[in-house]
Amino acid sequence: MFDLQFYIEQKNLQINEAFEKIFQNFQSNETLIEAMKYSLMAGGKRLRPVLCLGAAEAVGGNPQDAIMAACALEMIHTYSLIHDDLPAMDDDGLRRGKPTCHIAFDEATAILAGDALLTLAFEVLSAASTEGGDLAVKWLKIIQIIATAAGCKGMIQGQMLDIVSEGCKLSVGELESMHSLKTGALIEASLLCGALIAEAGAHQKQLLKTYARNIGLAFQVTDDILNVEGNPEVMGKATGTDQQHDKSTYPSILGLEASKKFAQKLIRNALQALEGFDKKAEPLRALATYIVERKR
Amino acid sequence: MFDLQFYIEQKNLQINEAFEKIFQNFQSNETLIEAMKYSLMAGGKRLRPVLCLGAAEAVGGNPQDAIMAACALEMIHTYSLIHDDLPAMDDDGLRRGKPTCHIAFDEATAILAGDALLTLAFEVLSAASTEGGDLAVKWLKIIQIIATAAGCKGMIQGQMLDIVSEGCKLSVGELESMHSLKTGALIEASLLCGALIAEAGAHQKQLLKTYARNIGLAFQVTDDILNVEGNPEVMGKATGTDQQHDKSTYPSILGLEASKKFAQKLIRNALQALEGFDKKAEPLRALATYIVERKR
Repeated sequence: MFDLQFYIEQKNLQINEAFEKIFQNFQSNETLIEAMKYSLMAGGKRLRPVLCLGAAEAVGGNPQDAIMAACALEMIHTYSLIHDDLPAMDDDGLRRGKPTCHIAFDEATAILAGDALLTLAFEVLSAASTEGGDLAVKWLKIIQIIATAAGCKGMIQGQMLDIVSEGCKLSVGELESMHSLKTGALIEASLLCGALIAEAGAHQKQLLKTYARNIGLAFQVTDDILNVEGNPEVMGKATGTDQQHDKSTYPSILGLEASKKFAQKLIRNALQALEGFDKKAEPLRALATYIVERKR
Repeated sequence: MFDLQFYIEQKNLQINEAFEKIFQNFQSNETLIEAMKYSLMAGGKRLRPVLCLGAAEAVGGNPQDAIMAACALEMIHTYSLIHDDLPAMDDDGLRRGKPTCHIAFDEATAILAGDALLTLAFEVLSAASTEGGDLAVKWLKIIQIIATAAGCKGMIQGQMLDIVSEGCKLSVGELESMHSLKTGALIEASLLCGALIAEAGAHQKQLLKTYARNIGLAFQVTDDILNVEGNPEVMGKATGTDQQHDKSTYPSILGLEASKKFAQKLIRNALQALEGFDKKAEPLRALATYIVERKR
């Protein structure tokens, strides 16, 4: 039986080690660094970097080769949370059981810490390969994948849609397309980057894309379900907020039971995409199941 | 006599053409694109991209090779202005004679438009070279230079220092070091990137760095002077704001006349650094003079 908890812990040790290296001899404003680290080390699930490392492993690569891409993905995810939590956006005071960045520091610092994490992600990616030739081409491609997924054609577009659609009744199709941008794009990029660094073939990349799309959506459906029936203490944030903000969610459109069934079906699709992979894809399989069974 | 106005206009045509290409067939939220373009096309001086192209030219390169770096630099500069203008930061309602982004749209859109411009800059840089080998290595280096200059070791650190030092009496040394981060770092990166793309030698790069540091600081000293005695109508923004916010500036520390002399001395240093360059550096020479003589 594959021990996902242990796997995640081991990966987190590697990720934290890489972050320590990134922040070593770091010349910047103390408060700014503190705010960046505060959000980066707030005990998130680290889903994106673990997926990136897991994808490299699944296609037979050394996950350590993808560690800087993993860190960059987590920095970008963290910046997006910091900015999403701002008063002008979702106005959230609590995240992962701790005050959000603009509460722990102040709004200006939170805006700048987010900007700084986003920029640092690209600095780290640009420095990940100092060797020439093909490696440089590969890292340029990784920067392109991540920037496109995180930018206004991907994640930021999704956040924008999320904001403007507050209070609107969305169809399931509209909801899905919003989430495929807001969370799906960066999750897909995480798997693609891991696969690319590990020299996956075109067919493997296609299968990992299918896996990514299904778990990405399942992740969001589960988030919606947890917002209805999750335990706020376990989740470290308030529940019931979607209903308060009159947000279109899977439970609000499909109902709770149908949403759970939908999430299960997505996970089956994801596992099916991995059928041709050997046991090195065990972490990705376990992560898919974890995504719908998690309590936070 | 070199016609700087004509030169800037020509470069701006090229830059706008490149931006049109960047935004062609652009899939994103309409309002988000509108907000990004609103600030990008608000009639700024385009100093950074013109310096980048001018540096490529000065060392004998083809400025068109640097056009995507030039656009990326302008997008990063524009994002920094959008975020700096936010209520939680400098709370400015007017920029270049037009309502700032969060006034013309709203705060959430302005935050996201800034994030999107920053991310798009790196997407554009990563796609600037689709050829392999040395070119990829060069563009990775350019991404590294720009990310480092724009991030928490450079521009963002400078903005953070600017915020925390509001109401504090700074020494000339502290003021200089803040500005070398807040505006100097990205100006230096602009020249370095142009030089790097045009294959400048180490000595030329060193001289352009000296030029950059001097004009960067002169730019800021002149900004401070204009904030005291500039014409708000010509400048398209309010003056006297530094004094209102009790900001340490060159005029407040050195006095107005000494500040003007200091700016002139910086420009002499900048021109001296270019002495070994031939007439292809004429645009950079004219830009140095323009920086202190400008009225907006």
